Amino acid sequence: MTDIRKDGRTPDELRAVTIERGWSEHAEGSALISFGRTKVLCTASFTNGVPRWLNGQGKGWVTAEYAMLPRSTNTRNDREAVRGKIGGRTHEISRLIGRSLRAVVDVKALGENTIVIDCDVLQADGGTRTAAITGAYVALADALEWGREKGFIAKKAVPLIDSVSAVSVGIIDGTPMLDLAYVEDVRAETDMNVVATGRGLFVEVQGTAEGAPFDRRELDSLLDLALAGTADLTRIQLEALGA
Amino acid sequence: MTDIRKDGRTPDELRAVTIERGWSEHAEGSALISFGRTKVLCTASFTNGVPRWLNGQGKGWVTAEYAMLPRSTNTRNDREAVRGKIGGRTHEISRLIGRSLRAVVDVKALGENTIVIDCDVLQADGGTRTAAITGAYVALADALEWGREKGFIAKKAVPLIDSVSAVSVGIIDGTPMLDLAYVEDVRAETDMNVVATGRGLFVEVQGTAEGAPFDRRELDSLLDLALAGTADLTRIQLEALGA
Amino acid sequence: MTDIRKDGRTPDELRAVTIERGWSEHAEGSALISFGRTKVLCTASFTNGVPRWLNGQGKGWVTAEYAMLPRSTNTRNDREAVRGKIGGRTHEISRLIGRSLRAVVDVKALGENTIVIDCDVLQADGGTRTAAITGAYVALADALEWGREKGFIAKKAVPLIDSVSAVSVGIIDGTPMLDLAYVEDVRAETDMNVVATGRGLFVEVQGTAEGAPFDRRELDSLLDLALAGTADLTRIQLEALGA
Amino acid sequence: MTDIRKDGRTPDELRAVTIERGWSEHAEGSALISFGRTKVLCTASFTNGVPRWLNGQGKGWVTAEYAMLPRSTNTRNDREAVRGKIGGRTHEISRLIGRSLRAVVDVKALGENTIVIDCDVLQADGGTRTAAITGAYVALADALEWGREKGFIAKKAVPLIDSVSAVSVGIIDGTPMLDLAYVEDVRAETDMNVVATGRGLFVEVQGTAEGAPFDRRELDSLLDLALAGTADLTRIQLEALGA
Amino acid sequence: MTDIRKDGRTPDELRAVTIERGWSEHAEGSALISFGRTKVLCTASFTNGVPRWLNGQGKGWVTAEYAMLPRSTNTRNDREAVRGKIGGRTHEISRLIGRSLRAVVDVKALGENTIVIDCDVLQADGGTRTAAITGAYVALADALEWGREKGFIAKKAVPLIDSVSAVSVGIIDGTPMLDLAYVEDVRAETDMNVVATGRGLFVEVQGTAEGAPFDRRELDSLLDLALAGTADLTRIQLEALGA
Amino acid sequence: MTDIRKDGRTPDELRAVTIERGWSEHAEGSALISFGRTKVLCTASFTNGVPRWLNGQGKGWVTAEYAMLPRSTNTRNDREAVRGKIGGRTHEISRLIGRSLRAVVDVKALGENTIVIDCDVLQADGGTRTAAITGAYVALADALEWGREKGFIAKKAVPLIDSVSAVSVGIIDGTPMLDLAYVEDVRAETDMNVVATGRGLFVEVQGTAEGAPFDRRELDSLLDLALAGTADLTRIQLEALGA
Repeated sequence: MTDIRKDGRTPDELRAVTIERGWSEHAEGSALISFGRTKVLCTASFTNGVPRWLNGQGKGWVTAEYAMLPRSTNTRNDREAVRGKIGGRTHEISRLIGRSLRAVVDVKALGENTIVIDCDVLQADGGTRTAAITGAYVALADALEWGREKGFIAKKAVPLIDSVSAVSVGIIDGTPMLDLAYVEDVRAETDMNVVATGRGLFVEVQGTAEGAPFDRRELDSLLDLALAGTADLTRIQLEALGA
Repeated sequence: MTDIRKDGRTPDELRAVTIERGWSEHAEGSALISFGRTKVLCTASFTNGVPRWLNGQGKGWVTAEYAMLPRSTNTRNDREAVRGKIGGRTHEISRLIGRSLRAVVDVKALGENTIVIDCDVLQADGGTRTAAITGAYVALADALEWGREKGFIAKKAVPLIDSVSAVSVGIIDGTPMLDLAYVEDVRAETDMNVVATGRGLFVEVQGTAEGAPFDRRELDSLLDLALAGTADLTRIQLEALGA
Repeated sequence: MTDIRKDGRTPDELRAVTIERGWSEHAEGSALISFGRTKVLCTASFTNGVPRWLNGQGKGWVTAEYAMLPRSTNTRNDREAVRGKIGGRTHEISRLIGRSLRAVVDVKALGENTIVIDCDVLQADGGTRTAAITGAYVALADALEWGREKGFIAKKAVPLIDSVSAVSVGIIDGTPMLDLAYVEDVRAETDMNVVATGRGLFVEVQGTAEGAPFDRRELDSLLDLALAGTADLTRIQLEALGA
Repeated sequence: MTDIRKDGRTPDELRAVTIERGWSEHAEGSALISFGRTKVLCTASFTNGVPRWLNGQGKGWVTAEYAMLPRSTNTRNDREAVRGKIGGRTHEISRLIGRSLRAVVDVKALGENTIVIDCDVLQADGGTRTAAITGAYVALADALEWGREKGFIAKKAVPLIDSVSAVSVGIIDGTPMLDLAYVEDVRAETDMNVVATGRGLFVEVQGTAEGAPFDRRELDSLLDLALAGTADLTRIQLEALGA
Repeated sequence: MTDIRKDGRTPDELRAVTIERGWSEHAEGSALISFGRTKVLCTASFTNGVPRWLNGQGKGWVTAEYAMLPRSTNTRNDREAVRGKIGGRTHEISRLIGRSLRAVVDVKALGENTIVIDCDVLQADGGTRTAAITGAYVALADALEWGREKGFIAKKAVPLIDSVSAVSVGIIDGTPMLDLAYVEDVRAETDMNVVATGRGLFVEVQGTAEGAPFDRRELDSLLDLALAGTADLTRIQLEALGA
Repeated sequence: MTDIRKDGRTPDELRAVTIERGWSEHAEGSALISFGRTKVLCTASFTNGVPRWLNGQGKGWVTAEYAMLPRSTNTRNDREAVRGKIGGRTHEISRLIGRSLRAVVDVKALGENTIVIDCDVLQADGGTRTAAITGAYVALADALEWGREKGFIAKKAVPLIDSVSAVSVGIIDGTPMLDLAYVEDVRAETDMNVVATGRGLFVEVQGTAEGAPFDRRELDSLLDLALAGTADLTRIQLEALGA
């Protein structure tokens, strides 16, 4: 049954994923990533030195900020800068991206350097946080390489201990599906975002019953689907990085 | 090896959990819940009517706000009201509590009524969000009963379709453990909060690798432990409600 | 005429006042104080060192913050953190508590240490500011003792030069009354808060005509009543402190 | 001993008080009041109608806002608009001015009209809040007259039931003094602001021990001095109003 | 002397200008415009209806918001949403874009419809505000066409009465130059932004002496250069619109 | 035709301009300037030292802040401090005043000193920003003199390299006019503010088509008119300064 999804995908199929590495001419690392119609611009800003609270500990810092352009969505949302505060969802996703990246960074090897990743959603069609994490990894990798070339990171240091990517999964009409587009996301009974490393280990598992609570068997099948998806994304990241 | 935990608990043992139902003389429902030294005051405020965006749909609304008193923790934190904004963690937990409660509420049966749950942490020793969800359910149940007595909820309506509780689990030195106290939480390699219904279904699963990423087997053992914990909490909630 | 007040008190009678000293396991000093149904949690946080603007002057600093839980009152109030700013009443009471405590502290004897008192109203039934001041003194006294034991305050220093407590008085239907409960407070023509030391000296006198302005004779009778009340409160504080 | 005060005044002497009525060409009532070098511009803005929460009750509303120009003081203070919030002192004084004016207004006679009084300190030399209240009364009286002329207030209605003025008193080196200039204010052991009506009744009494707490006898002498001062101010107000 | 400018342009030469019309799949009109390395995403959001203050006047409203992504520039800038307020420069440019667009819109012909233009700078290299205005016009034109097709704008109405574009000019080392790149902008003694219509009329002229003040002759030569530039931009806009 | 303007002025005539130098007894320089009924209080606050980002460069800093009293206008506007943020127009004008003053200051000659100019509009009738700039120059000149007398500025240093003033011009019913009062400003098709030095050079030219766009010839006649006006204002400034 190939027409189970509006866009013709099978339940376990990712959308077309493309990564335009080095999109920004200013940032030390950057990637414009697309998961179908979802487009996120990820830039990594490298600064020598760390925030005051980390001073003198020989460790670096990686953090992230996520935002959506006001008309990235189907109807316009007010700018958070105009409202004067960051919303709960924005905070939550920014924190998730930061944690996900830090899970694959050895902050000792990074040394006293700071990397800020900005993930700005230019167009949204579901899965913006998972696209952001996946693209952010590419930007991060390039910024680290830049830091090494500039001599801020020691020659032999290995600050990246693994790669990281993320994908959404959900149950729609009882069927577990991979990489939900917006129209699918709103219909899903259960929605889960999984962040995993290139080696197939979990970094984050966030499952939410949107409709009815879910049982253990459903949870297991979603986890299987997600790990298959992040394995694919890992391959696409490596290609983009020419590794 | 009974002394694996500082407070003498076995790995699969909850802290002493107590629920003082009806602590507040003003709120329509309330509970002062303790998970060991963690104490959270949960109040449920019932209002007839709904926010404007829900008007006329015959559905109710349940939402939650979480906060910590400045000296609920070991060192004092600035008040969010003084800083002029809600932090990311606070937002995230407030949203989690709200989603968890809504998962067991039939908003049609609730009718056009609004319940706001406030969870204020008076003393914190790890697991404040899981204590908050567990206590909030008791406050919610009483507020719904109040609404029925006052005639705002139909006699035969069944707004509560299940109960809900939450517990934290984590892996410390390779051992999965239930209901982490603060000193345990900071040492955990993996930290997971699980929200489940009285019937044993998942509402939320939020696992985070604090140190090294975790594999599928570890994830499975944490889920087992969590479901055993929420089953216990369900029993304690029922006792408190005199059901 | 014993039934002049709803709760059966005589005009010159305090509500039942109880002080649970050491309620918080984290704070250096704490007290959960009740004036009838009004309950305020007071914690004192001791920090070695002073704010930058006091540096190097050999003097300490004592300040206070007051807040109400959203459902401490009969109907729920929005959180000030959510509104993004502290209201005028909150500011005013925080400043009053701070001034009242500083009036009995010898900041030279305190040395370069800072004490922040948090007064959080858990349940409100009139007189929250006077209960806060009265409880804050107990928390302060214990925090000072803690500072002495830890060696931050000199052995022979006497940072507390007197005790301090507070009570409300008001004129209702022409009769001056002590320690107004909420239902009395809203009916009072004149409302006065008096802060006085254990020795019977005034620290603050704040009288406001809520209805008609008041004359000198009325003012005098209110002051008499208030001083009798603070004398009682002083005794209760001393008992709580085991002095 | 005539030279007890820097400016040559006797202890019970007001500074030169002048009132420029109608200073603003836009406001419905206005006064530029000087207490010596303290200059406050008071404007009263009359609007037909009341805030939503007062709708349909047949009552009016009077409120006030106080602010200082950044360089009204000896050293420049940051603008509250730039800091993004109103400070505690500003809030407190705004509320005091509003309460003081409402004490002499019959809101039923005012009808469903709103008057906003703005008191902006152009130059500060102590006593800005008392000058503000005294000048605000003149602006208010003219705005009420304007409202009557325009037909918003009934012909026979008497919205002003008394006049109101305010003065500061304090104890310096043991001597009670009237209307403190800034250099006196910072030296005062006790500082009191008294708001009284033209008939000599108290509206507000706010006494604060800046240094040592004060006894009943001192309080009494300050109250005597203040009532003499507000009697003088009442006369000056009446002259300004040509009454 | 071809090498007077770093990028090889002659003083009166625009950078390469490209317009990707319809870049956004959600917005009613959109354009990704590049002035050399400066890239601005302009989206136009069409809403039937007007803000309350315009209700019932038969007129529409056009407004604009400008913002820069944090790493659009050479070094990262904090997000305005994180700082909690919009900076002065951002406000100023947003207002300029809005005024510029309204100058060519007949709000009566637009009818009671609102168009919000968002101009988000993805990459900055000088001239972001002029690129924004030039691209915004294209997005606006498409949104108006969309409104006509949907029937929100009358068939025969002509809401666009002219086209509008903008360009920067400046004096560098005494030579007037067109369309300054960032490295030129920082060196310019005088900097001017000119907004002009397709018919060659001025909408805005904003000249600022960054270094020394400028005389009338210099002003005249800058205006000449600017009008030649906006004539070129008008042609490029028409091509993009396929007109 | 003398009655072309409501107040009887000819098109090229300034309103009555008066400058009360030294109005403030606290500020290092001050001027209360009137352009007809528009009254702006300008104070200059001199501080030895510079903001951190300028430290050690041997240069000073001049900045400005503009604000309107809430009832300076015909109808009351909310305070920006109450709204919690500075509006776009306020920001824009503050920045304009600062740039205008810096254009005539040699920051090297100023040395590491900071001057903050506050321009507070006490009464508004059009042209508040141009009155502010013109008055601010007088306050600035006096503050610089104060700095020299106090020894913060070197004896032979010449921090002021020219004078600066500003005026508005506009086209009303096809006629270019100087110094628009409020009723004229709202009718103007084109509105221009011109800031020029005492030597007749331009510092800022900001022309906006409020109604129809304007052509080159109109622009030229407005510039002529403005330069004649600023020449007059220069003379009035010199008189006020007794130069």
